[in-house]
Amino acid sequence: MGRIICAGLGPGDPDLMSRRAERAVRGAGQVAYFRKAGRAGQARRIVEGMLAPGAVEHPMEYPVTTEIPFDSPEYIDRLSAFYDDWTERLAVLAASGDVVVLCEGDPFFYGSFMHLYMRLKDRVEIEVIPGITGMSGCWTGTGLPITWGDDVLCVLTGTLPEDELARRMAGSDALVVMKTGRNLPRIRRALERAGRLQDAWLVERGTMPGERILRLAEAATEDCPYFAIVLVHGQGRRPERAPPEGRAEAAE
Amino acid sequence: MGRIICAGLGPGDPDLMSRRAERAVRGAGQVAYFRKAGRAGQARRIVEGMLAPGAVEHPMEYPVTTEIPFDSPEYIDRLSAFYDDWTERLAVLAASGDVVVLCEGDPFFYGSFMHLYMRLKDRVEIEVIPGITGMSGCWTGTGLPITWGDDVLCVLTGTLPEDELARRMAGSDALVVMKTGRNLPRIRRALERAGRLQDAWLVERGTMPGERILRLAEAATEDCPYFAIVLVHGQGRRPERAPPEGRAEAAE
Ligand SMILES: C[S@@+](CC[C@H](N)C(=O)[O-])C[C@H]1O[C@@H](n2cnc3c(N)ncnc32)[C@H](O)[C@@H]1O
Ligand SMILES: C[S@@+](CC[C@H](N)C(=O)[O-])C[C@H]1O[C@@H](n2cnc3c(N)ncnc32)[C@H](O)[C@@H]1O
Repeated sequence: MGRIICAGLGPGDPDLMSRRAERAVRGAGQVAYFRKAGRAGQARRIVEGMLAPGAVEHPMEYPVTTEIPFDSPEYIDRLSAFYDDWTERLAVLAASGDVVVLCEGDPFFYGSFMHLYMRLKDRVEIEVIPGITGMSGCWTGTGLPITWGDDVLCVLTGTLPEDELARRMAGSDALVVMKTGRNLPRIRRALERAGRLQDAWLVERGTMPGERILRLAEAATEDCPYFAIVLVHGQGRRPERAPPEGRAEAAE
Repeated sequence: MGRIICAGLGPGDPDLMSRRAERAVRGAGQVAYFRKAGRAGQARRIVEGMLAPGAVEHPMEYPVTTEIPFDSPEYIDRLSAFYDDWTERLAVLAASGDVVVLCEGDPFFYGSFMHLYMRLKDRVEIEVIPGITGMSGCWTGTGLPITWGDDVLCVLTGTLPEDELARRMAGSDALVVMKTGRNLPRIRRALERAGRLQDAWLVERGTMPGERILRLAEAATEDCPYFAIVLVHGQGRRPERAPPEGRAEAAE
């Protein structure tokens, strides 16, 4: 009886993969990863050139639909059936040996693998390897720390309603907005209403080929790629508190 | 003229270091790291056994004080002088070759290195290598995803006033509280007021030797170590939105 190992691969640059994830990827007899039909898939792209010769690949292709909208109950049913189907298939595959599931970023942070994990966790032994999140890759790219001292960081998704986005943006020190893509116009309006637009950065494809880092105020809001994050850096609330904490940090 | 390379080492387990950080650590001719006088230092501990023979070590020891409180203006002045001093020393050291600064977790996420980074960045070339954050290591240890769908994640520091903690805890889906340690009794009271105590986890020394993961309601609040995080998992707000996003994710 094998295990399922979900390897968090980090934000995109293969060099930002952990040593443990690297070992899992290189040693895998079988790998699985999500992708859209006809595409390579971001997770698969990260491990290009690293798979062992003879490793069996299982692309998990999202159901394609042209005739029904993606958020219709019918499509959602299809997607649920897709996860159910791969739950069964992975359980069967794991019976004959370990399966490594490749995941971008950190699997437990807004990752699609969770839909399989929750269905499989009481049936198969699963190891999850954390990864560097997309947001860490993105804020490092801006060359400025995201949080200092007592800063509050709020992580939002661009799918939220504009009013809620604006309210939360006004109420936090540092901000990260995930799932940007076609939600960027709404995110931008919300930042403007919250008085935070001038401090916002847009990071497209952080640490990946084609990375682009710019002030959001200077960016066009059309054609934003799926892998894009909006950031506002904290300014260090009560930075005078840093000393005792710094000291405590060294105390361990 | 050398560079300063700040290597994010991840949450504690050396296997969770990135390939790039590992290469920087193994290849370093000189390393620097914060520690309390007389202690090994957490960052130094992570790289135990990995430094090249002959690598020169520069422990940056926080100023010790027994006679003045850590948050007094006088101590804060001393700490500021300590950062100024190491700014000069690192600039001089970098003139003769690369210096690798070792940092726990992700350097730009509440890391002490920022105090040196902001002083040095216009004088010396600095590369920052992101790392897996302590919180990723901690939520992975709980065996449950931290955020799903449209969940809002709020990252707080245990140093904030109880009222503010309680208000923000009530208003977010998923929660992470950093800088727990001796602030744990206040964090616990705030969670109780916010009605979130039953869902809270305490992770001490996540992925480090001595790791301990338990329900906060069952934990004693005294003697909490410095490396400890409190977590509340999101429950997946609007999980029905996952399908279109899942599909979009595969589209890249
Ligand atoms: C379904 S979530 C997966 C997040 C991932 N598990 C992580 O840890 O970052 C996908 C969203 O993450 C963000 N993202 C992840 N990696 C990114 C990167 N390298 N650059 C920009 N955005 C990224 C984008 O906002 C994207 O819409
Ligand atoms: C000064 S901050 C540094 C955070 C670090 N740069 C990171 O990326 O996680 C120190 C705080 O991080 C948290 N922390 C970091 N690593 C941890 C771990 N492995 N286990 C538990 N808590 C951790 C603790 O709350 C600690 O008080």
